[in-house]
Amino acid sequence: MTDFSPALPQALELLDYFGIAVFAVSGALLAAEKRQTLVTFIFFAVATGVGGGTLRDLLIGAPVFWVHSNAMLLICIAAALAIWLTSRRWIAARALLWFDAAGIAAYATYGAAKALGYGVAPVPAFGMGVLTACAGGIIRDVLAGQPSILMRPELYVTAAALAAGLFVVLWVAGIALPVAAAVAAIAGFTLRGLAIARGWSLPAYRG
Amino acid sequence: MTDFSPALPQALELLDYFGIAVFAVSGALLAAEKRQTLVTFIFFAVATGVGGGTLRDLLIGAPVFWVHSNAMLLICIAAALAIWLTSRRWIAARALLWFDAAGIAAYATYGAAKALGYGVAPVPAFGMGVLTACAGGIIRDVLAGQPSILMRPELYVTAAALAAGLFVVLWVAGIALPVAAAVAAIAGFTLRGLAIARGWSLPAYRG
Amino acid sequence: MTDFSPALPQALELLDYFGIAVFAVSGALLAAEKRQTLVTFIFFAVATGVGGGTLRDLLIGAPVFWVHSNAMLLICIAAALAIWLTSRRWIAARALLWFDAAGIAAYATYGAAKALGYGVAPVPAFGMGVLTACAGGIIRDVLAGQPSILMRPELYVTAAALAAGLFVVLWVAGIALPVAAAVAAIAGFTLRGLAIARGWSLPAYRG
Repeated sequence: MTDFSPALPQALELLDYFGIAVFAVSGALLAAEKRQTLVTFIFFAVATGVGGGTLRDLLIGAPVFWVHSNAMLLICIAAALAIWLTSRRWIAARALLWFDAAGIAAYATYGAAKALGYGVAPVPAFGMGVLTACAGGIIRDVLAGQPSILMRPELYVTAAALAAGLFVVLWVAGIALPVAAAVAAIAGFTLRGLAIARGWSLPAYRG
Repeated sequence: MTDFSPALPQALELLDYFGIAVFAVSGALLAAEKRQTLVTFIFFAVATGVGGGTLRDLLIGAPVFWVHSNAMLLICIAAALAIWLTSRRWIAARALLWFDAAGIAAYATYGAAKALGYGVAPVPAFGMGVLTACAGGIIRDVLAGQPSILMRPELYVTAAALAAGLFVVLWVAGIALPVAAAVAAIAGFTLRGLAIARGWSLPAYRG
Repeated sequence: MTDFSPALPQALELLDYFGIAVFAVSGALLAAEKRQTLVTFIFFAVATGVGGGTLRDLLIGAPVFWVHSNAMLLICIAAALAIWLTSRRWIAARALLWFDAAGIAAYATYGAAKALGYGVAPVPAFGMGVLTACAGGIIRDVLAGQPSILMRPELYVTAAALAAGLFVVLWVAGIALPVAAAVAAIAGFTLRGLAIARGWSLPAYRG
């Protein structure tokens, strides 16, 4: 699916599929909440599932990852159908929060790694990790006309920033890629998990 | 205007200009409804007229179709001026709905054809058709801060999906391009026309 | 930072940094007004600071200007931190309006010049100037869920259009680049300044 296979272990690529599916589900769930049609379910699932990675690929000059394969969009369409066919009472919102936490951590790490693999400078590579993890959700919220995840004080973007930033620092420090990826993703997931479990949030500006 | 001229009949290229003009008018009309200035009219006309095709070209890696010619933007600016100089009472909203239906059908077919011509896989090529037809209107609605066409149950995105999907299926089946394009565009236009004439819409999720 | 250095005087490149900083501050100020967290400050500063130029580079097929250097994002992050650490009472809103006016004029001129340097046709090059100056602010407003600068009758987009349009006309007329750039930027700044000082605005559509 990606173009820097020699630089990235196969396991990380699996995380790519996992991230797409989790984010597609979160897009379809918002469509369900807003009582939309099946077509809107699919549109939201696709925009949320591939939005962040698409923006990353456009910015780093990589071929957009879902354009030359059918698999990515089919995953999103399947996620939308699954949610459409399911009663909302059956969907454990809390379980999804945890899958989403894993998706953020995996995607932020993967996005930063792909950017570095394309020769992007460290600070923008860190930005690409954050964008990969968060832009899908931002696009979803803008399309639905609701306050963006950006505007919530939860440690959401922050968890993505921790994973992406840690990966870039470890990579610059010369740590082996699988180790750097594992440490970064686990740190991001842990921070997001603590935010979910304990309701942690960032302080707001008081000026 | 496009880069795959050998693969696409000239007639379809004319549809490109037609689609831009129709969508530019719909952008300017929203600016009129919101009592905006002439500069906003032009901005909305351009964003709506070329937005969908721009996103498609970025995603498939094609040069953005309006960047190397003056014609496309001048069409949008002319459309904005025409609406600005016209009293709204003179504009037949119902007539515009039908032109817009033709624009959707033409653009969805054209977008899918251009994507296939660039070697895009069938499922994403279908997505490109839908995006070409609908993204301009979505961008227009987001800029104006109003609920997106995505969120309405009308058969709008669905008609684009029918045209794009049918074209891709016929193309994969080896049908001659002009035939496939005509069948797909007519089917999409018919579905959208029935939705306009009879008020058809999709069922919403009840969960 | 840019890829057409032979065509553009060094001074104009400094204006690039200046424009990024001014727009980044305006993004962070909106985050302050909305009582957001530091992470949101940074996100808004980056999106507003580099958003317009990013869209321009994607559209004209140039490498995105901030991806291969650390400086641009660090400027945005520094701007966000500076606003975060400052009491709002200390920020002279009126002073910022004037810096922003200079940013618009500089960026519109620079954006049109960069587009022409990439072989873009005159009308779209004019559009690229407007987009470079205004798209960052539009993205900022959409992310924050507030009415876009597009929808305000102030001479904001218009000032960018004057600078970009004048530059393209002078360039097509064969005027030396530094002269064309200076005349265009000063004209755009003057128009925006008059709008600020005298409350000038464009007439709205009455239809």
